[in-house]
Amino acid sequence: MEKSNKGVQLVGFWVSPFVHRVKWGMKLKGIEFEYIEEDIFNRSPLLSHLNPITGKVPVLVHDGKSLPESSIILEYLDEIWSHAPLLALDAYHRAEDRFWARFADEKVLESTWLTLCSKGENQERAVKVAIGHLETLEEKLRGRRFFGGDTIGHVDLMMGFIAYMLPVWEEVATVTIFDASKFPNLAAWKSSFVNHPAIKGDFPSKDEMFTYFQWRREVYLQMI
Amino acid sequence: MEKSNKGVQLVGFWVSPFVHRVKWGMKLKGIEFEYIEEDIFNRSPLLSHLNPITGKVPVLVHDGKSLPESSIILEYLDEIWSHAPLLALDAYHRAEDRFWARFADEKVLESTWLTLCSKGENQERAVKVAIGHLETLEEKLRGRRFFGGDTIGHVDLMMGFIAYMLPVWEEVATVTIFDASKFPNLAAWKSSFVNHPAIKGDFPSKDEMFTYFQWRREVYLQMI
Repeated sequence: MEKSNKGVQLVGFWVSPFVHRVKWGMKLKGIEFEYIEEDIFNRSPLLSHLNPITGKVPVLVHDGKSLPESSIILEYLDEIWSHAPLLALDAYHRAEDRFWARFADEKVLESTWLTLCSKGENQERAVKVAIGHLETLEEKLRGRRFFGGDTIGHVDLMMGFIAYMLPVWEEVATVTIFDASKFPNLAAWKSSFVNHPAIKGDFPSKDEMFTYFQWRREVYLQMI
Repeated sequence: MEKSNKGVQLVGFWVSPFVHRVKWGMKLKGIEFEYIEEDIFNRSPLLSHLNPITGKVPVLVHDGKSLPESSIILEYLDEIWSHAPLLALDAYHRAEDRFWARFADEKVLESTWLTLCSKGENQERAVKVAIGHLETLEEKLRGRRFFGGDTIGHVDLMMGFIAYMLPVWEEVATVTIFDASKFPNLAAWKSSFVNHPAIKGDFPSKDEMFTYFQWRREVYLQMI
């Protein structure tokens, strides 16, 4: 199962949802790697060297070459370690996976994050937009255990923050976005996701996230 | 060379830079297709049916299945019609191509478009950000004719708007972003790009674009 994994390193930050996607992807494929924790608020020379363009985590280092961006890293994992594929195998469904992967970041994550960084009317608007995106996901999950069907895959890892991190954002921001009674398909997916052997327990504790995101929210609200 | 191209249709809008990427990609691969012009300001039931999630063009229809998002369509073209590949052939360079494809949309297009839709201090800020992104591209193009090397490819198609559309945006918005004397590599790329046999003349005329984007700018400035 192991191939070309000498010198696999992952540069991350403990609470980053982008980093967790890559960790889970490597776990699902059984890729051994060294994890390097980075302080994203005081970037090391290593990170500036590995990702000079955006300076963000995660960065994958494989055989001395560095690669940023979680969705791009996940695709790369599939290409180098082709067992336990994360993307669908046929071209059309793979394209669909890429569409929903973008939807995760550009729609769901952006709108839900905005609810954490805003208040008043702006927050109310963001909550409405975020709920609209969850409605789209609810429909997409009709009759499916995971986004790609029966097996966990690329889109699930991209959407994973909805399952374990969004509840903390909602609590910190005192909003309700993911009302399980309104989103039964998404609630079933959430349960399948957080209980999957590769995911279970492999994310920060609720308390640690609460403290961190409460601080992030305070900083953002001071900037408004 | 032709394979599986029965029933290839492209739903587009005459001035969309996203649509032109896909047109050029199909031309480079010699894929015959039917082009269907859409009025994006008064969407047809066809477009709502083909792309219910975002309602945007381009949409590729292949064998009755529809696919939105220009970069995702370009990857799909490579997978179905694998001759004349647009993405690099090895996994690491393909991942790099994906990184720069995202950079085209999320950084260069977003910042340059913002200069068209703003004025005063906001516009000055956007111009600075956009110039910073071109500096990154200038460095990336050092010693290369195209973004991937000697041959036109995925990243060039994604960046193509810089070559033929950005000059119009600059004129409409009376700003200077792409100063050829400061960006000699990018200027050489621009010339290689617009004179490539698959690209030459295959975009809207400067006059048509000027009128259209002048109107778009006016509408945006009224909204501020």
